[in-house]
Amino acid sequence: MELKEIIRCACGDLPADLLITGGRLLNVFSGDILTGNIAVKNGVIAGIGDYRSHHTVDLDGRFVVPGFIDAHVHIESSMTGVSEFARAIVPHGTTTVVADPHEIANVLGVEGIRYMLSVSNGAPINVYFMLSSCVPATNMETAGARLTTDDLRPLIHEERILGLAEMMNFPGVLSADPEVLRKIAMAQEARKPIDGHSPGLLGVALNAYVAAGISSDHECTTVGEAREKLQAGMHVMVREGTAAKNLAALLPLVDPHTCRRMMWCTDDRHPHDLLAEGHIDFIVRSAIGQGLDPIIAVQMATINPAEYFGLKHLGAIAPGRQADFLILDDLKELDVTQVYRRGQLVANGGRMIGEDMRPQPDYPPRVMKLIPEAIDFSIPARGRSMRVIDIVPDQIITREVIVPVSIEDGLAVASPQRDILKIAVVDRYSGTGRTGLAFVRGLGLEKGALASSVAHDSHNIIVIGVDDHDMSIALQTVAENGGGLTVISEGLPRALLPLPIAGLMSDAPMEKVCQHFDNLNSVVGLLGSPLKNVFMNLSFLALPVIPKLKITDRGLVDVEKFERVPLFVD
Amino acid sequence: MELKEIIRCACGDLPADLLITGGRLLNVFSGDILTGNIAVKNGVIAGIGDYRSHHTVDLDGRFVVPGFIDAHVHIESSMTGVSEFARAIVPHGTTTVVADPHEIANVLGVEGIRYMLSVSNGAPINVYFMLSSCVPATNMETAGARLTTDDLRPLIHEERILGLAEMMNFPGVLSADPEVLRKIAMAQEARKPIDGHSPGLLGVALNAYVAAGISSDHECTTVGEAREKLQAGMHVMVREGTAAKNLAALLPLVDPHTCRRMMWCTDDRHPHDLLAEGHIDFIVRSAIGQGLDPIIAVQMATINPAEYFGLKHLGAIAPGRQADFLILDDLKELDVTQVYRRGQLVANGGRMIGEDMRPQPDYPPRVMKLIPEAIDFSIPARGRSMRVIDIVPDQIITREVIVPVSIEDGLAVASPQRDILKIAVVDRYSGTGRTGLAFVRGLGLEKGALASSVAHDSHNIIVIGVDDHDMSIALQTVAENGGGLTVISEGLPRALLPLPIAGLMSDAPMEKVCQHFDNLNSVVGLLGSPLKNVFMNLSFLALPVIPKLKITDRGLVDVEKFERVPLFVD
Repeated sequence: MELKEIIRCACGDLPADLLITGGRLLNVFSGDILTGNIAVKNGVIAGIGDYRSHHTVDLDGRFVVPGFIDAHVHIESSMTGVSEFARAIVPHGTTTVVADPHEIANVLGVEGIRYMLSVSNGAPINVYFMLSSCVPATNMETAGARLTTDDLRPLIHEERILGLAEMMNFPGVLSADPEVLRKIAMAQEARKPIDGHSPGLLGVALNAYVAAGISSDHECTTVGEAREKLQAGMHVMVREGTAAKNLAALLPLVDPHTCRRMMWCTDDRHPHDLLAEGHIDFIVRSAIGQGLDPIIAVQMATINPAEYFGLKHLGAIAPGRQADFLILDDLKELDVTQVYRRGQLVANGGRMIGEDMRPQPDYPPRVMKLIPEAIDFSIPARGRSMRVIDIVPDQIITREVIVPVSIEDGLAVASPQRDILKIAVVDRYSGTGRTGLAFVRGLGLEKGALASSVAHDSHNIIVIGVDDHDMSIALQTVAENGGGLTVISEGLPRALLPLPIAGLMSDAPMEKVCQHFDNLNSVVGLLGSPLKNVFMNLSFLALPVIPKLKITDRGLVDVEKFERVPLFVD
Repeated sequence: MELKEIIRCACGDLPADLLITGGRLLNVFSGDILTGNIAVKNGVIAGIGDYRSHHTVDLDGRFVVPGFIDAHVHIESSMTGVSEFARAIVPHGTTTVVADPHEIANVLGVEGIRYMLSVSNGAPINVYFMLSSCVPATNMETAGARLTTDDLRPLIHEERILGLAEMMNFPGVLSADPEVLRKIAMAQEARKPIDGHSPGLLGVALNAYVAAGISSDHECTTVGEAREKLQAGMHVMVREGTAAKNLAALLPLVDPHTCRRMMWCTDDRHPHDLLAEGHIDFIVRSAIGQGLDPIIAVQMATINPAEYFGLKHLGAIAPGRQADFLILDDLKELDVTQVYRRGQLVANGGRMIGEDMRPQPDYPPRVMKLIPEAIDFSIPARGRSMRVIDIVPDQIITREVIVPVSIEDGLAVASPQRDILKIAVVDRYSGTGRTGLAFVRGLGLEKGALASSVAHDSHNIIVIGVDDHDMSIALQTVAENGGGLTVISEGLPRALLPLPIAGLMSDAPMEKVCQHFDNLNSVVGLLGSPLKNVFMNLSFLALPVIPKLKITDRGLVDVEKFERVPLFVD
């Protein structure tokens, strides 16, 4: 029996599998740096003290800290599968992630969550999940799934399911929507936490949201907001992702009293940032660089999320805890030189050990129920003026502008000289071919077309172009690949990143994904666009919960009014 | 639906049942003192802010702190039933206790635990239980029950069962005893904590104990011991009871880093101390008086135990939490003037509200399987020297002395002029009348006899006396009352405290219990004893896990050798 062996090893009656000597150990419980040898048995820390082992590693005074935990992440945002994601972040010291499979759940429902559970099972990282609470995000679009309490209930007691994921539907909470309350009750009955998502929610509305049982938030952007949420009893996750960066703003809130209920998360972090900057180590390093006590910075990456999520076997270098720890030359520079997981050296000098042995990932079912050739992108001109989605560079909000319609042969057409392109969102789930059609300003494309199957949150296929033929080829290219990003010009694909895993994730190494992504962007630049990350903008144009004017497969949506609006205004 | 109403109240759409205005609220999350009005709906705090209510209480700047939590207590030590215990401690601000029903479990097994669950159900206090892990304490005595994992398993998922109680059997843990590991696994599978009990356990043995899954300790007596346990990952409960007082010794360990994993407990606190000094309020007040930051002192009485035990609805004044809070005139003096539980004023000025309405308590089955008249206290003299239990005043340890035997008519008899009395422990469970007989020195009794059914941990009946007749009357008196403490002289009861609840607890008010107790002690004094609390000494003479010489119904036990030894040595 495994525990018996660990107890015998702890007692000194069995030799350890691994003995780490000469380290300076960060004790997250007392806040001290201690000396002592770490004895590992069966992947678990048996004890700190004088032990014997056949395999000893001497650290010569280097530092040992517990493996880092990302408290909230959408793995899909890395655009790679779980094993590639792990390969990118484990060398940076992240040994545990708590993931919300919200994107793949919108595409594949429970099957998507089970797929993520399955492929993460043997990954060289501890992957836990929260159950996506808000699938689909709205009723104004066709999604791949609708997850009810009854759908989620069979999963809530699974060991690697830690609770209910970010409850974005705060209006549903505040109105005491019965189905929302059922989901909350399900998690509470399982004694598992419920993450929040409530940007800017304060005062009485915040009280109601917390009273309903929501116990964390990662959307704070100011100290005032974060303090009010913390004082209301929420655990505050400080997010430093690719698009949303809140570290500098929230750091002043961290003090010896507040820190125990604060932790780090990345939420969404794109491949370039993961490779260039790192992951939780980047946040810890940045926080220390901005003046935070390294002890507290590490606690927020380790014991704090472990306690919040009830992961009693993680987050500390102590007897009985999983032997996940990092070797650092220096506590301030926070350069992770070695990473141990379950007592095995899994990364060294920024690279995974034995990375070639990565198994071929499984694939979930292909979800691409549409006939690209059958989609008609033409728009009969039914007015002289129309609403146009106006892109705001580097932001995910849009504006609405009213412009004259360009008409050719009775059809409303793109007008690249005015930077007005046609946009389509094509349902890829129901087989109806339902297509929302409108126009968008601000991409700067002079010719060709783009398409993407990454279109939050339903991830239908979004197509933008100057002419219908290139748009059709773009749609066809994405569909043929089971999903992806592409740029078409003169009827030919000029760049392509296939995303065969649910249309969201690549099966290629992350470095390859970055290369493809760079190539996509440079081709888009050649076609005239000034935007640096046009596919990021694309991915939010179909999200009808972010103001102002968005588009789904059912047409234009005025998000502020939360209703569909017609294209033509007169 | 209750939650729906709380949400509506939090949103301001329904009036609160109670509004507390003008208070200074201690926020245990941020460590701040805040202003704001507390809105209570259905016994729950709906929110802090601007709310309306038909019933408003203005505090005029007084302080509000969350209700206090006792992290580890044996209610039986109060010698009163649960409702009387509550009546004594609620006015002192304790609104929640986490109890180990170890004593009644030794008498009545699972039925005793279920009795405590039942009678505490309607009590004006939140009573939670840990499942007693070590019943019986040893195999060298007859106990009322033997609790195996299979016995405990049906209880572990009950809402008011929080985990496994103090694992006193640390040798069993260190030797990986299969039944001990089964109990641990049962609690871990239920995701519930396992309390420890490991006085002086350090080094590799501590590592093994913690690695096995034990997550707290309340037996630390020095800063060094407590620091090592905390650094190993244990939550440290600082105990300040009647016999064991560790506050002053452990206070230097409490700092902003360590405090989050520290909390207060009383363990065993006798009626006199409860009435005269108080309960957790006494500890908090003492800690502040000794220099601890009042914020930290209150956190250790509120949010810290709430987090450790997974009581997400307790420990703070925040939305969604049960409306248990205390009104104080001053944070340093810590005089609890009003106590609210579930939004109701339950105590005012040190007294319960409506205390006369206390329902008559239920009684568990009577456990007194013996025929007092049939017990023979005579000891045939089988040697010239004998081992005698030597009492150490004010301590629960004893010594062993070898003395000449006083012989009359071939029988070994008491010798009051040498302060040597006869002692008997009579099995009250099996009906065999099995009686262990020996002698004890240090009580100073010149005549008469004492008897008690409080005799840790098996709680057989212990009888001490100068002559066999008085001893027989003493046993008879205790048995007739279903348990109790008595003093007999010249064949008549001179003082009596009946303990009809399992032979451990009175059904009288605590003040009455104290009067009876004082009376018992003064009669014992009149009979010549210099001991101040002779029944406390008595209660540990049958506990064969505390050195050196003890007695059970099976005879003398040398605790250091952990084996039975004969009375006569030559």
